[in-house]
This record gives sequence, C-alpha cells and structure tokens, in this order.
Amino acid sequence: MKLDFQKNITIVGLGLIGGSYARALSALGYTVTAIDRNADSIDYAISEGMITRGATEADAAILGEADVIVFALYPSIFVPWVEEHQAKFKSGAIMTDVTGVKGCVVERIQNCLRPDVEFIAAHPMAGREVSGVRNSDPSIFRSANYVVTPTPRNTEDAIELCCHLGRVLGFARVSVLSVDDHDEIIAFVSQLTHCIAICLMTCQQTEHLEDYTGDSFRDLTRIARLNDEMWSELFLSNKDALLSQMTLFEEELASLRKKLEQGDRDGLREMMRASTARRALFDKKPIT
Amino acid sequence: MKLDFQKNITIVGLGLIGGSYARALSALGYTVTAIDRNADSIDYAISEGMITRGATEADAAILGEADVIVFALYPSIFVPWVEEHQAKFKSGAIMTDVTGVKGCVVERIQNCLRPDVEFIAAHPMAGREVSGVRNSDPSIFRSANYVVTPTPRNTEDAIELCCHLGRVLGFARVSVLSVDDHDEIIAFVSQLTHCIAICLMTCQQTEHLEDYTGDSFRDLTRIARLNDEMWSELFLSNKDALLSQMTLFEEELASLRKKLEQGDRDGLREMMRASTARRALFDKKPIT
Repeated sequence: MKLDFQKNITIVGLGLIGGSYARALSALGYTVTAIDRNADSIDYAISEGMITRGATEADAAILGEADVIVFALYPSIFVPWVEEHQAKFKSGAIMTDVTGVKGCVVERIQNCLRPDVEFIAAHPMAGREVSGVRNSDPSIFRSANYVVTPTPRNTEDAIELCCHLGRVLGFARVSVLSVDDHDEIIAFVSQLTHCIAICLMTCQQTEHLEDYTGDSFRDLTRIARLNDEMWSELFLSNKDALLSQMTLFEEELASLRKKLEQGDRDGLREMMRASTARRALFDKKPIT
Repeated sequence: MKLDFQKNITIVGLGLIGGSYARALSALGYTVTAIDRNADSIDYAISEGMITRGATEADAAILGEADVIVFALYPSIFVPWVEEHQAKFKSGAIMTDVTGVKGCVVERIQNCLRPDVEFIAAHPMAGREVSGVRNSDPSIFRSANYVVTPTPRNTEDAIELCCHLGRVLGFARVSVLSVDDHDEIIAFVSQLTHCIAICLMTCQQTEHLEDYTGDSFRDLTRIARLNDEMWSELFLSNKDALLSQMTLFEEELASLRKKLEQGDRDGLREMMRASTARRALFDKKPIT
C-alpha cells in the first residue's frame, strides 16, 4: 500500500521530529494536520504552511478524518494518549510512531488498540542537538536510517505503507527489524555511546582540561550535550537491553585493563588489530 | 633563546611527525638533516627537499654538527639510542622529542645525559590515521597543541627555545606543563578515549551492525583504527596514569548503571545535565 495524496495525515506531537515530518509531507503535497498541546507550535506550523489545521486537544474532527496518524510523543505519554483517545480514530486508520525504543510501546499499543485500526511501529534514526518545531528540518533524514519494526499482528499492507512513508520522507535507508533486534542495536549504537559520552564528561573534574583537548576527545563527547528529559526516558524504557550492552562493554574494558596491568603487550596489540579491522567495516559501507 | 637560522637541526626518526617537522622547518629556511634506519625514507626526504643530508646510522658528522636534535622515535627505542650515541653530540646541543608520554622518558634521558648537552621534552599533540614520512604534512600542526614539559633541571634558555620551535612549526597553542600533569591529561583525553573506542569496536560481534550505525557511533569509534605498535607502547609507558583514569571512568559508568538499574530518573537527569553543562566548556574555548 502506498501513501497516496488522498490520505489525510495527522501528526500528534509537533516537536523536532513531528515538525520535520509535517514540513516534508506538506512540501510534497500531502494534507497534514496536527495535534500538539502547545498552541504556539500549532500557530507556527500553520503560518509556515506545514499543516492545514491543528488543535491543542485530541480534536475528534481531526482524528476522525485521519487515514494515517504519526505519533511523535515521548513513550510515557504515547500509550496513555492512545488509550484515552482511540475511540475518536477513523475505522481503518493506520498509526505509526517515531519512538526511539520499541519493546516498551509496541506490544502495549497493539494490545490496547481497537481491532479496526492498526499500529505499525517505526524509528526514524535522526535527530539534532536542538529541539522543538522551530528547529524542524527534513534534511536531517537525508543521510539517516528509517527502521520499521513489525510484529506478527501487522498486515503486509501496513508494513508496506510504513516503509513507503520512510522513502517519501527522504531517508537514505529504509529497513525492517524485529522489535528485539531493534532495541538491542539501539542500546548498543546509540544509548551505550551516550552513556559513555556522559561519563567521560562527568568523571574528571580537572580544570582547564579543554585547553589540552584534541579532536579525539571532542568527537567522543559531542553527544554528551543532550536533552535529559528525553534521554532518561529512552534509557529507562530500554533498560534491560541497555544494561546488557553496558555489561559487554564493561567486560571488554576490564579485559583491556587486565592486559595493561599485566604488561601484556601482545594481548593489547591483538585487541587493537581487531578493533582496527572491525572499524574498517564501518567505513566501507557508508549509508547510501 | 630563539631558533635562529644559523642552527643546524637534526631529526632522528623520519616518520609522520619527524617528517612533518622536517618539511615545516626546511620550508622556512632552516638547515635540516636526518637520521633514520630506513634508506628509502632518507632518499624520499632528500628528493622532497625536506633535508639536506641524511644517514641510516647514527652518523658522527651529522650529530656532531647538530645544534638542535629532535627525537621522533618510539619511547622504547629513544632512551637506549641516546645512551649509545650521545658521545657524538655537539657540546651545548639542545635535544627535544615528540614522545606522547613523558614520565617514562624525561627522567631517564636527563639522568643518563652528558652534562654539556640539555634535553627539554615536548609533545606535539598532532597525528593522523596514517603513518610514515610519505604522509608527513605540517598542516596537522595548525589546529593542534604543543606542550613543553620541563623539569627543574632545565634552563630557561632551553625552555624558551623549545617553545619557540613549537611556534615556528605553526602550532595553534604552545603551553608548558609538568611531566606529571601532562601524563595525567594525556591519559584522560587521549589514551582513555582510545581504550573506549577499541572496546566499543571489539565488545559486540553482531553482524551488519554497520547498516544501522549513525553519526554518534561513527564519531566515537573513528580513533578505533590505530597503529597497534605505537599505541600499545604509549599505553604501557603511561600505565599508572592510564589505569587511574580508567578507574575514574569505570566508577562513573558503574554509578550511571546503578541509577539505571534502580530506575533513578532524577539521578540520571542530573548526570545528563552535568554532562551537558561541562561539554559546553569544550565548545566555548576553541583552540585559537
């Protein structure tokens, strides 16, 4: 199923990502409406031509006409919102989301949802170090991954529609993963790296360290500047997967430490050669 | 004391850094000679006009004329080389180095050295992911730090000459640190970050991870590609300082882990806010 121009699309939550969806889709000619508790965000989006209509409440008229609803909410708000307002959804509507963790929302949404609507989860792996609809910018999708995470309850039609949405939005790569694989990968490549950057920034209070800092340290801590409300929720929502990945990393660091303590030069060099070889993979296959 | 054009400069070790020194100094009009065990490196450097003369042995004529000798050797080779060949040095010569760790070399060199020559240590904090004289390029100094690490045995004249060399080479910032402070800072900003990058690369063997990798992970692992001979030696040469910094980091990661296990959202957010605030310092004062 393709996302044709007859379909009404409603974005719930007009932040950085929701706003970037609205900007991209309206620019392509889709009819986009939005719900956001912040009247200023709605007014701004209308004035920018990103949406045709908006409301600060779960407006029954808007929701009743939506063929596709994109939820761009924090995970903790997302599930109760759907439970409370799903009676207003149009029969046959397809819902999707942008949540960065999946295990904590997909099953709960699919369990509570009316049988005549369908939820197909997706994770647009894009972001910026700033937030809010005024910073929304669909160009952040251009070099990014878009991952659809279906369950056995999803129909082929909905999966196809959701993948098509990712392509329409301009993502560099659209792929399909199971919920568990997604959450494990995200725990490793995104959440663990944020944990490391945070700890590098907070473990050492030597003054004027910034005067002696080179590119390595700057690169490793760029993401140490983060939205604490969102990231604490992401960490806690994916706690088990993140703890497992932390364990793998901690054990590896302990192994390197032991080699260093024992003066095991060959062991250190072997780890370095393995690291060098594996890192090459990450260069060879750039996102195209 | 300034590095005037009457001074003969000899580079011992024509690799990436030694070669970049030779290229920069000869381009400015200094008379540069070199010693390197690899004849090809010497021939290349002569053909490029980087040096006027070179030798593959510790040539007595070259060393006997050198007013300034720059050692660009691995720490394990550096000390025995000086012990063996110092009889050939010119009386009054100033020696400096480019070694990335200082505690393991400065005292040993100063202890063994003839009383009529002086060793003043320096660390040009620059590098590339490639090595060898053919990759030498003085532009790597432009945004980098150059740190001089004198001891009480050093004269003001030699410290000044060494600082002047850093400015002549084009470093963005020339500063002076004690040997211990230098090694602690290097253990943290450079060696610990390399340990982390290595472990991130080797702790997880999931296939096709590179297909789902975003900029955060790429940034954190750029330095995971490294020269295992050089880096194992740097780690082992600065073992105690590096182990101390690893401990600080491991304890901080354990603290974050505990907050996550306990669902301590406020504690996580507090760490994230501290990280965000401290990271801002590293943006505010770019190297100028």
